[in-house]
Amino acid sequence: MKIKIFTTGGSIDKAYSTQESRLVVAGPQVANILDEANVTIEWEVQSILKKDSLELTDGDREMIVEQVRQDPHRHIILTHGTDTMIETAQALSSITGKVIVLTGSMQPAAFQRSDAAFNVGGAIIAVQTLPEGIYLVMNGQVFDPDRASKNLVQNRFES
Amino acid sequence: MKIKIFTTGGSIDKAYSTQESRLVVAGPQVANILDEANVTIEWEVQSILKKDSLELTDGDREMIVEQVRQDPHRHIILTHGTDTMIETAQALSSITGKVIVLTGSMQPAAFQRSDAAFNVGGAIIAVQTLPEGIYLVMNGQVFDPDRASKNLVQNRFES
Amino acid sequence: MKIKIFTTGGSIDKAYSTQESRLVVAGPQVANILDEANVTIEWEVQSILKKDSLELTDGDREMIVEQVRQDPHRHIILTHGTDTMIETAQALSSITGKVIVLTGSMQPAAFQRSDAAFNVGGAIIAVQTLPEGIYLVMNGQVFDPDRASKNLVQNRFES
Amino acid sequence: MKIKIFTTGGSIDKAYSTQESRLVVAGPQVANILDEANVTIEWEVQSILKKDSLELTDGDREMIVEQVRQDPHRHIILTHGTDTMIETAQALSSITGKVIVLTGSMQPAAFQRSDAAFNVGGAIIAVQTLPEGIYLVMNGQVFDPDRASKNLVQNRFES
Repeated sequence: MKIKIFTTGGSIDKAYSTQESRLVVAGPQVANILDEANVTIEWEVQSILKKDSLELTDGDREMIVEQVRQDPHRHIILTHGTDTMIETAQALSSITGKVIVLTGSMQPAAFQRSDAAFNVGGAIIAVQTLPEGIYLVMNGQVFDPDRASKNLVQNRFES
Repeated sequence: MKIKIFTTGGSIDKAYSTQESRLVVAGPQVANILDEANVTIEWEVQSILKKDSLELTDGDREMIVEQVRQDPHRHIILTHGTDTMIETAQALSSITGKVIVLTGSMQPAAFQRSDAAFNVGGAIIAVQTLPEGIYLVMNGQVFDPDRASKNLVQNRFES
Repeated sequence: MKIKIFTTGGSIDKAYSTQESRLVVAGPQVANILDEANVTIEWEVQSILKKDSLELTDGDREMIVEQVRQDPHRHIILTHGTDTMIETAQALSSITGKVIVLTGSMQPAAFQRSDAAFNVGGAIIAVQTLPEGIYLVMNGQVFDPDRASKNLVQNRFES
Repeated sequence: MKIKIFTTGGSIDKAYSTQESRLVVAGPQVANILDEANVTIEWEVQSILKKDSLELTDGDREMIVEQVRQDPHRHIILTHGTDTMIETAQALSSITGKVIVLTGSMQPAAFQRSDAAFNVGGAIIAVQTLPEGIYLVMNGQVFDPDRASKNLVQNRFES
């Protein structure tokens, strides 16, 4: 089994630009996380977008769906901003024959305190243990995109 | 669903004693990890041992088995040292009707670089998605304790 | 000797707002840094502003100068954003009889990799070892505000 | 001005050996710390020992003194274990014409929470601002080795 990981940006990949005094979406953090955990299952990371998920256009989402559809791997993880993770998961619903898990983080992986490694750890197990389908892994739970919502006050996903 | 987490010590819980200039097994780190990830599923942590897993006696292992057997929860995680995690998992094999996941870390959770949050994230998902049985979650994989071994050179679990 | 520390905001105090998906100036980080280093000299932190230093107005700067002037302590540190740290240092130049050290960080203290603790460590020593005057401590050096500039390309202070 | 940094081991340089399940003195951390702070003054690191300071022999200490004496630089920092930092500082007292600052950390630099960067930041400033002599920089203070002691209960240096 080999896990294919598409990265699209979002909080998980934000780094601080000292020149601009603000956060920018930087290169994918997920490879660092997998290396730090010495993950021995085969995996491959491909960066297909570097955007805050609020800025994703319909065209971006179509591109993501096409990339996932055409990818030969059965086990697929997408790292994604949390604000529109559910919309992207729903857009992927026409794809069959794959286990697709979306995850991300509320706090950037570059921060001392972050949910990034925890969430990616959960996504890596979920993609191996769940049957064919589209799922979100956030806050220690597996969510069905059709029944999940992001609680903007509590900053967490709920079903 | 509520997840019961027993902690037994091991590298994951080691902290630096400045007075002794060495590492000691300190209080459980898993609650910090779950708080940092804002885990919304119900969970409860109980510390039953604070030992390096090489120092676990037969009596310690019997006590662990009894604690797990008598616990009313179906979904159980044990954090444990990696050196004898497999032995403890095998000792638990007589218990039925529960999903039991053992995890830990190669690098203490207190270090800047550690696999602790990643592994706990995986264990939390594994205990919810796997059927009844005893499992190890390490290095991004679910292992059957009867087929797993710790590779002491590569510092990782293999099957 | 007691060191008085005024905090004014800047990168050093930025935290990630998950609700707004951006950085905001949060509470002062300097007390955490001093606690983590178990600093035994007496110190006191007072937050007088929480602003990105590019947003400081002339009125803000006058307020800062008045706070420092009226403060009874001889040894004073200001944590401050780096973009206008030099301007504030120059505005303080009319104050005599005090050792005043401005510091801050290029990367927020909340990041895994940050110059915050290093810079504060330098400022704490500088304020005790330097004679009366106004100084910047950044990038491992003590700068005279009248001869320093921030190199925006290299992201560092130079003289 | 160029700062020469000799490293001798101690808590600051301890890393976790997953194979031995214990801490070992690893390569010097001070270069990482200086890089992270983008230190622009010229510096050079030389590792001359990798020992817990309780294990330093008289011969080790003589070697350290000779290295420092023969070094052509005027500004010298030693990173050192805290338990016998004072003894080594006193052994260096016959050296004149140099500014020599000893520092280290109570918690290893590899830990999430550590005084290492703070202390090195202080030592870098102290070596530039202090007159010729031998000093300890720990806990936010400059200590005279002849009047300092390590409080083993409070884990801090005092004078």
